[in-house]
Amino acid sequence: MSSPPVNFCSVCGSKVTLRVPPGDSLPRHVCDNCSTVHYRNPLVVVGTIPEWEDQILLCRRAIEPRHGLWTLPAGFMELGETTAQAALRETMEEAKARVDLGEVFALLSVPHVDQVHVFYRARLLDREFAAGEETLEVALFRESEIPWNEIAFRTVSAALRHFYADRKAGAMRFHSGEILPLK
Amino acid sequence: MSSPPVNFCSVCGSKVTLRVPPGDSLPRHVCDNCSTVHYRNPLVVVGTIPEWEDQILLCRRAIEPRHGLWTLPAGFMELGETTAQAALRETMEEAKARVDLGEVFALLSVPHVDQVHVFYRARLLDREFAAGEETLEVALFRESEIPWNEIAFRTVSAALRHFYADRKAGAMRFHSGEILPLK
Repeated sequence: MSSPPVNFCSVCGSKVTLRVPPGDSLPRHVCDNCSTVHYRNPLVVVGTIPEWEDQILLCRRAIEPRHGLWTLPAGFMELGETTAQAALRETMEEAKARVDLGEVFALLSVPHVDQVHVFYRARLLDREFAAGEETLEVALFRESEIPWNEIAFRTVSAALRHFYADRKAGAMRFHSGEILPLK
Repeated sequence: MSSPPVNFCSVCGSKVTLRVPPGDSLPRHVCDNCSTVHYRNPLVVVGTIPEWEDQILLCRRAIEPRHGLWTLPAGFMELGETTAQAALRETMEEAKARVDLGEVFALLSVPHVDQVHVFYRARLLDREFAAGEETLEVALFRESEIPWNEIAFRTVSAALRHFYADRKAGAMRFHSGEILPLK
């Protein structure tokens, strides 16, 4: 999901102009009729790394982008939510999974798609998970079974790599960073 | 800054309808002319906790909301940025301050204003800071000098309290949480 173009003012329906408003430093979509400035900003994607014993839950995507590839349960944060609420909601929606939410594990910027991805650690409460509407199948994977070549998003690979590196090192910690475009 | 109302489609200028799109679970502003769904999502505010010896840099706000109150340098993340780039930019814009960016220190959801606040630790490279356009004055404060009753935002108070508690405990760590509406 990228934001739709801004040709018209969402408040009054007039044509907008792209220009730098007074006191600002970047061009914005400005309505000369009602003076509304239409800012566009990065979106927050929140998900979990659901654990069951030595396994991690992954979802195979039923939607584009990356239809058929594997991902952690995650999605766009909604208005009125905390990141923790978004993590629980997305885990329920995509994997029908109930989890105990743990610590924030990773905060990863993806500037070329205007997103910030947040992953929480989480512990599955039972094995009663199932594919949600946007998921083809849900399964548990040991480290040796992770389908590294079929992971939908680089933030998911990065979060999983940090997870297994920390587990090997014997200490889980918070990670921040960025995923830059492939050359 | 809260998002302006969505009465008209920004793509084609037609009137929008608020309804639950097929396969969705929440009402969205939908354009029946060009089929665009206009999602609205929380915004990311990024800032720093700039340190100079045993002092912290604060900015007194020259703009609403909270004109005249003190804050950490912070602001809305722009398209195309990483959270780290946003933190450096806002610190330069609001306090004309050059810093070495440290770790992410806090991730705080503020659901009633649809925001997520991210604060980085940072070390001032020199004392050549100054008020930016949105700032009345910039100053360094020791812990005993922090104007707790004149702090602009509760996420800023929370970040500062975590900072001093960690310093007292002798170990800085990452904090996540939420700021809920005052009853």
